[in-house]
Amino acid sequence: MATYGYHDNKQSHLNRLRRIEGQVRGLQRMVEDDAYCIDILTQTSAVNKALRSFALSMLDEHLKHCVAHAVANGGEEAEIKVREASDAVARLVRS
Amino acid sequence: MATYGYHDNKQSHLNRLRRIEGQVRGLQRMVEDDAYCIDILTQTSAVNKALRSFALSMLDEHLKHCVAHAVANGGEEAEIKVREASDAVARLVRS
Amino acid sequence: MATYGYHDNKQSHLNRLRRIEGQVRGLQRMVEDDAYCIDILTQTSAVNKALRSFALSMLDEHLKHCVAHAVANGGEEAEIKVREASDAVARLVRS
Amino acid sequence: MATYGYHDNKQSHLNRLRRIEGQVRGLQRMVEDDAYCIDILTQTSAVNKALRSFALSMLDEHLKHCVAHAVANGGEEAEIKVREASDAVARLVRS
Repeated sequence: MATYGYHDNKQSHLNRLRRIEGQVRGLQRMVEDDAYCIDILTQTSAVNKALRSFALSMLDEHLKHCVAHAVANGGEEAEIKVREASDAVARLVRS
Repeated sequence: MATYGYHDNKQSHLNRLRRIEGQVRGLQRMVEDDAYCIDILTQTSAVNKALRSFALSMLDEHLKHCVAHAVANGGEEAEIKVREASDAVARLVRS
Repeated sequence: MATYGYHDNKQSHLNRLRRIEGQVRGLQRMVEDDAYCIDILTQTSAVNKALRSFALSMLDEHLKHCVAHAVANGGEEAEIKVREASDAVARLVRS
Repeated sequence: MATYGYHDNKQSHLNRLRRIEGQVRGLQRMVEDDAYCIDILTQTSAVNKALRSFALSMLDEHLKHCVAHAVANGGEEAEIKVREASDAVARLVRS
C-alpha cells in the first residue's frame, strides 16, 4: 500500500494537530467567558502560526519524498507533482 | 459588568470557532487515513483563511466598540487602546 | 490645509520607500545578472517585510491621528473612518 | 555557462519588477503629495501582491527546472536543493 511523505512522522503531525484543536477550543472558552478582544486576537495569531508550521513541515516532507520520487521517475507524473506543489505553495502564501 | 465589542455577536463567533474546530479534527482524520499531502495542505489553507476571517471580524468589532469608546472618553486610556489595536494588527499580519 | 496622521514622519516614510525602491532595483540587477533563484527569493521576502513594516507604521499613525480624531468628533464620520481602517487591515492581512 | 530556471522568462520577470519599481515610486509621490493614509495603504497592499506573484512564479520555475534537474541527478545535491526550496517557501510564507 502506497503511503505519503509524512507517513514516518504521522504521530508527530497528529500530536501537533491535537494541540491546535486544543488551542481552538481555548479560543471558544475565551469567547464564552467574555475575554478581552485583544487577548483573543493574540491567541488567534498563535493558532495561525501553529497551523502554518504544520503546513510547512507537511510541504517539506511532500517535496522530499513524493515530489522527489516522481521527479526521479520522470515523465508526465513528475510535471504534475511539481505543478501541484507550486499551486499548494501559492494557496498557502495567500491563505 | 463590562462586556466587549464582540458581545452582541458572541453566538456567531462561537459557531465560527466550532466549525474551525471541526475542520482541525478533519485534518487529523486525513492524516490518520493517510490522505494525500496536497489535499491536507489545501484543507490547512482553508482553516487558515477561516481563522483570519474570525480574527478580522473580532478586530472590526474591537475597533468599532472598545477603541471608539475609549477614544471618545479621551485621555491615556484612548492612547493605550489604539496602541494595543495597532500591535494586534501587526501580530495578525505577521502570523 | 488638512494633513494626515503620517505628516510628522513624512521624511522617515519617504526614506523607507526609497530604500524599498533600491531593493526592487537590486532585484532587477539580480535577474539581469542571472543570480540564483533562491537568492532572488530571499531578497524578495526581505522587500515584502520592508513593505509590510511601512504599511504597519502608516496604519498605526492613521489610527492614532485620523481615526482617533474622527471618533472624538463622533457622528457618521467616526463610523466611516473605523470601517475604512478595518477594511484596510483586511486587505493588508490578505495581501 | 549555467543559467537558472527563470532564464527563459527573464524579460517578463524584469518587466514585472520594473512595474513594481514604478508602483513604489508611486507610493513616494503619494506620501510627498499628502495623499490619504488609506489610499497609501491600498496601494501598498497592491505592491505586496505584485511582489508575491513575482516570488511565486520565480519559485515555480525553480521547482520545475533547478530542483527537478538536481533530483533527477540524485545524490546529495538533490537533498540540498529540496531543503533550500523548502526554506525559501517558509521565508515567503512568513514575509
